[in-house]
Amino acid sequence: MSSTPTHRVFNFGAGPAVLPEPVLEAAQRDLLALPGVGMSVLEISHRSATFDRILEQAEADLRTLAGVPDDYHVLFLQGGASQQFAMVPMNLLGPDGVADYTLTGKWAKKAASEAAKFGRVNICATTEDEAFTRVPAPDGLRLTPGSAYVHVTSNNTIVGTQWPVMPEVGTTPLVVDASSDLLCRPIDVARHGLIYGGAQKNLGPAGVTLAIVRKDLAQRGPDTLPTTLRYAVAAAHGSRYNTPPVFAIYLCGLVMRWLLDAGGLRAMETRNRRKAGLLYDAIDRSGFYRGTAQPGSRSLMNVTFRLPTEELDRRFGTQAAEAGLAGLKGHRSVGGQRASIYNAFPDAGVATLVEFMAEFERVHG
Amino acid sequence: MSSTPTHRVFNFGAGPAVLPEPVLEAAQRDLLALPGVGMSVLEISHRSATFDRILEQAEADLRTLAGVPDDYHVLFLQGGASQQFAMVPMNLLGPDGVADYTLTGKWAKKAASEAAKFGRVNICATTEDEAFTRVPAPDGLRLTPGSAYVHVTSNNTIVGTQWPVMPEVGTTPLVVDASSDLLCRPIDVARHGLIYGGAQKNLGPAGVTLAIVRKDLAQRGPDTLPTTLRYAVAAAHGSRYNTPPVFAIYLCGLVMRWLLDAGGLRAMETRNRRKAGLLYDAIDRSGFYRGTAQPGSRSLMNVTFRLPTEELDRRFGTQAAEAGLAGLKGHRSVGGQRASIYNAFPDAGVATLVEFMAEFERVHG
Repeated sequence: MSSTPTHRVFNFGAGPAVLPEPVLEAAQRDLLALPGVGMSVLEISHRSATFDRILEQAEADLRTLAGVPDDYHVLFLQGGASQQFAMVPMNLLGPDGVADYTLTGKWAKKAASEAAKFGRVNICATTEDEAFTRVPAPDGLRLTPGSAYVHVTSNNTIVGTQWPVMPEVGTTPLVVDASSDLLCRPIDVARHGLIYGGAQKNLGPAGVTLAIVRKDLAQRGPDTLPTTLRYAVAAAHGSRYNTPPVFAIYLCGLVMRWLLDAGGLRAMETRNRRKAGLLYDAIDRSGFYRGTAQPGSRSLMNVTFRLPTEELDRRFGTQAAEAGLAGLKGHRSVGGQRASIYNAFPDAGVATLVEFMAEFERVHG
Repeated sequence: MSSTPTHRVFNFGAGPAVLPEPVLEAAQRDLLALPGVGMSVLEISHRSATFDRILEQAEADLRTLAGVPDDYHVLFLQGGASQQFAMVPMNLLGPDGVADYTLTGKWAKKAASEAAKFGRVNICATTEDEAFTRVPAPDGLRLTPGSAYVHVTSNNTIVGTQWPVMPEVGTTPLVVDASSDLLCRPIDVARHGLIYGGAQKNLGPAGVTLAIVRKDLAQRGPDTLPTTLRYAVAAAHGSRYNTPPVFAIYLCGLVMRWLLDAGGLRAMETRNRRKAGLLYDAIDRSGFYRGTAQPGSRSLMNVTFRLPTEELDRRFGTQAAEAGLAGLKGHRSVGGQRASIYNAFPDAGVATLVEFMAEFERVHG
């Protein structure tokens, strides 16, 4: 292997996203053989004692971090949040049930339209008429009495909004797509029925999907479903009904360990508020940059803004990339810039971007 | 990173299984940052030009290796062969259709029982009354006229059997679960309707599923299916309807490159026949070891045998593991030993096992 220092850019990509360097270094060190095992983690059996320990430790660390109660399963699945868009209604929404969906962006809409394949969907709140630049008021949902669940997308990567607190839904199970902000701050799992997320933003690499599901809800899916799409099957087999994505789970485990070492979710929230605050301050005090999301709904994870003209937006992106600030281009449906600053994104990258923004404004403002 | 030589055992595991060392070394070298990219492949966007190149090259190399015709899609999916057990009938078997299944082992039975959730299943051949120790005669299938497809499991890892040639099925689409022997020898893709397999034996790590599907068949799945379970959607989006398992696809690409460098599938077949031949010869000439699969159906990938007593089987496994020969324990439903020797398994490991067998027989025979 090369002994030259590895050049790494600041990766502001929205996902798959930056991972903690100590995680990558540990994975690299052991890639040819796990210590004492003599095989790469890419080669070990999912039925081996070695993998049992990896999966159990990843789950235990997640339970510690997020305070997951005993009456919840922690499941490692495949197919991403998009497969959850189907699994949730297939498992939780009976043929005569209704599910309440909040529309807060493109992904929330996809979740709702997928659910409509499998049952009745009620849109209990939407901010589409404001181009999704804010989330609904937490107490403003028009819930269906007796609905099977309420679906919320906790963080919306495209416009850059995030629910500051979860909405009040009474005793109806709250189902949250937390793909882009899970573990960015403390979470009260007991207020949820099901929390799910693709790992590739805050939890690990692409290729594994986390689901934290209340045990009674996990049993609801009928056995006529595809076997790999039943929460009950994954739960009964400890996420190993069939071969799971071993390496991706191993990486998630290393990320959980890194989060614990970093002080857990309270420390992470402090860090994330500090990072996002620096960027929102830079936007608000400039008069040159304009934030896309409305204050009060701004995301800690995806800071969106735009420049005075599309031409300046293009130039900003090009020059930023040349300066080692990669992945800032906003989603094509919104334009502008998007700085995704998930848990693993370093403070130094935020500081560098703030400096770059000031200099760019000085030259072009 | 440590500069001490990495200790690796011979990994006879049935899957996830051994990967080529040059593949692991390349992945390790670039794990913190792909050359010229400044990010780990674990962190790059699935919409980036970098990943476009990785996926396109992996597909192109697979097309070269297996001679995949232009009227077939190459898809990288998730969920393993078990999810294909559902996807195949959900996509290919209409509500009034019948599918023919061959039963050649536990996995073939699982495929058939999963299909029965979604339509009518006819068992067109089975060797269950011989404990699956052989595959059916290729011309002995009782096919249903007009059936939607014929399903075959090309290699059966548990008992260690493999179809020497694919059965004759006329114009009915042949659907093959090739999870455990794809790319072990040349394949006539044009004789198939759909070939699928979890990657974790011959193609790469756990967490990605390959499907090679005739384009007209890929269109059959109705749009009422879960979106992530439609071949047509995966095909229309170049395996990127949502975030794919980026790292697992990258590894598959490195394995494809290794296969090409090793001379392609003819060279691989020669190598696999040599490796398996050494072990079957050792079994047949001993009188001490007994092969589990019947000659004529013996697998090139999983060589199964047993010792005169269960006590000797246990002792054999323990002493073999101490000698650096790992993962030889047979599947719990069959017992005995199983030497899985997929493409990446080195000749040296086979030679070491043959020597170990001779010495063990000398002491205990």
